[in-house]
Amino acid sequence: MNIDIDPQKMARYVEELGRLGELPDGGMARFQYDVAWAQAQDLVAGWMREAGLRVRRDAVGNVFGRLPGADDSATILTGSHIDTVPEGGKYDGALGVLAGLAALEALAALGERPRTSLEVVSLCEEESSRYQANFFGSRAMLGLVGPDEPATLKDADGVSMAEAMTAVGLDPSAVATAKRDDVAAFVELHIEQGKVLETAGTDVGIVEVITGLVWEEIVVTGRQDHAGGTPMDARLDAVQAAAEISTAITRHVAETDKAGRVTFGRWDVRPGWPSIVPGEVVLSMDLRHTVAEDLKARADEVHRIAATIAARRGVEITFERLKDETPTVMDTRLREALTQAAADCGATSMDLPSGAGHDSQLMGEHVPTAMLFVPSVEGRSHCKEEYTHPEDCVRGASVLATALHRMAF
Amino acid sequence: MNIDIDPQKMARYVEELGRLGELPDGGMARFQYDVAWAQAQDLVAGWMREAGLRVRRDAVGNVFGRLPGADDSATILTGSHIDTVPEGGKYDGALGVLAGLAALEALAALGERPRTSLEVVSLCEEESSRYQANFFGSRAMLGLVGPDEPATLKDADGVSMAEAMTAVGLDPSAVATAKRDDVAAFVELHIEQGKVLETAGTDVGIVEVITGLVWEEIVVTGRQDHAGGTPMDARLDAVQAAAEISTAITRHVAETDKAGRVTFGRWDVRPGWPSIVPGEVVLSMDLRHTVAEDLKARADEVHRIAATIAARRGVEITFERLKDETPTVMDTRLREALTQAAADCGATSMDLPSGAGHDSQLMGEHVPTAMLFVPSVEGRSHCKEEYTHPEDCVRGASVLATALHRMAF
Repeated sequence: MNIDIDPQKMARYVEELGRLGELPDGGMARFQYDVAWAQAQDLVAGWMREAGLRVRRDAVGNVFGRLPGADDSATILTGSHIDTVPEGGKYDGALGVLAGLAALEALAALGERPRTSLEVVSLCEEESSRYQANFFGSRAMLGLVGPDEPATLKDADGVSMAEAMTAVGLDPSAVATAKRDDVAAFVELHIEQGKVLETAGTDVGIVEVITGLVWEEIVVTGRQDHAGGTPMDARLDAVQAAAEISTAITRHVAETDKAGRVTFGRWDVRPGWPSIVPGEVVLSMDLRHTVAEDLKARADEVHRIAATIAARRGVEITFERLKDETPTVMDTRLREALTQAAADCGATSMDLPSGAGHDSQLMGEHVPTAMLFVPSVEGRSHCKEEYTHPEDCVRGASVLATALHRMAF
Repeated sequence: MNIDIDPQKMARYVEELGRLGELPDGGMARFQYDVAWAQAQDLVAGWMREAGLRVRRDAVGNVFGRLPGADDSATILTGSHIDTVPEGGKYDGALGVLAGLAALEALAALGERPRTSLEVVSLCEEESSRYQANFFGSRAMLGLVGPDEPATLKDADGVSMAEAMTAVGLDPSAVATAKRDDVAAFVELHIEQGKVLETAGTDVGIVEVITGLVWEEIVVTGRQDHAGGTPMDARLDAVQAAAEISTAITRHVAETDKAGRVTFGRWDVRPGWPSIVPGEVVLSMDLRHTVAEDLKARADEVHRIAATIAARRGVEITFERLKDETPTVMDTRLREALTQAAADCGATSMDLPSGAGHDSQLMGEHVPTAMLFVPSVEGRSHCKEEYTHPEDCVRGASVLATALHRMAF
């Protein structure tokens, strides 16, 4: 059987949640423990209550809505995160929370008690937009948050996470209580953030693996000089070295295979004056691959390419690794349930990798986990143009609900 | 005859002026009409008085010290500017003021009245560090400052130049009174800001031509995307386009001839987040050449190179010209006086172009003008490492004084 979702309710959820943290130009800024975040979690909690779910907020601000089963000792969990990147969109994370809510609402409306308990979660943090706390919500649930973390982490204004938690009524000393051992499975619906589904004309995607990721800070040090007095062949121009290195690395990754990605998103060119040859550049590198050995091979080759160019140009180069996340393979049984559910709903589906990171990559290391992708228009994401058609939101929620019904009833 | 300069006094001038605006790490920040600037002009005015010169401050804050001649209707002017670039050095501009002061001090000490009046000037502004007011001091003297300029120009904090002038006791409505018509010649001593003299082992340089300069703001617009979800071949990465364009242009200018220079000193990569493919880059281009036709040819070719790469990558590119200064050829008679003076002082000299811009390039369009270069250690300039050996400072001032003696006595 397939579970239907009310399109009007789904549209209302997306629209109303999308107003909390909306910027004047249409992008979103909803960061962990800020005002828009707190309003959003309250709004979601209210909707969970209206849906007939048992609502609970844990010590880090994750919000849960539960549909208890005959066996209430284990939980099948669905959901995603409520926070956004700076100038982000309305769908990344949020749609997974709302689809999970709509799914459990539809299942609760069946009037039958499930065998296993079902729960939807609105996770407090995934994007590291305010604190370098990536996956804070799922980490807290898995018992992976250190006791000192809230006091140690500071935002750009110097506000500690502990202070920010207190401001929204949370007790930073209680983070350990967020740990739970009853989660038997995790299923996350998310926008694709790419255009594989759109290009293929396929309704939903079943994720096979979540990409591994390396973040490094690269510092290129040349020599600051006068732009007029210094002949071209007497320069140690840091930004020219960084430009050549970044284009050579980008070409290498693009030409090696289709699964690799590399991005140099942040550039701090110093001193940043038109008539001064830059002496130093600090830039970020985001390197991804779906296969652990290939990710390592790419990272090694990237360092060789950079060192060769730096040596030829006579500049110094250093790398500091800030993140190192291995690829996470999704659970076969759960993937099959999603594929079957898509068929039950008359939706076309395909297997695909996730280039982006998700709470599911961490959850998947500890409990059976699967992800369901819905199409992103033009593949746009992490920007105000991020959009998923209402019918794709509803279809995704319906496939999710149908899969949860298969698993829990 | 040659005029000697007191080495101890010269060293004291450099040291004491170099303390005003010095940063904790040793670089300099002395910007038009700020506190360090006002202290510096007061200090220089005091030294001029002690040297027996007649001191005057004009409406824009240029400070003059005059040694009146038998014919007091025309003036042979020497000097340079007192302001610095951000994180600049102690010699750029300042040494020309101090050498001119020391030269006139030595000439005054002769006890003879010159035929023609001599004057040293500490110009208020040359670097555009605080206001986009390049050559404000020399422009005011030449009557090239518009009446609305002080009210219109704003610094990074939104303070208008008119407000900044008022704060240091100047009347912004009086800028027109700074114009003067009595300047018969201008001679500027300056550090080389390159290492031609150092490499050749030559004591002083006689400038033949001051480079022409084009400043443009380049905007590259691609598409902001998720770093994980967007395959490499589906991106319109603005920073990768900017990197390729800047390296291709740099290669073209470097390989065409030895007189061209190009620098991309300022990069604003947006939104500047590690996991977001940059959607827009704003970067500065500083393009120079000593020959007007060659500067134009380089600028045209640069635009062709950029447009070709942008079209191939599918990104938009725009150029806005912020400055367009043609090369300025120095006065032959004044150059001969400097060459003769160097010989009188037993100093080796050579002709060379100036890659950097100077007040002399503007002065040279209106009055006979020449420049005398002293060596820069390792060619370093516009940085805290900028340095000229004390004996080179003294030798330069002595050659300057000897040339002024030839011209005015």
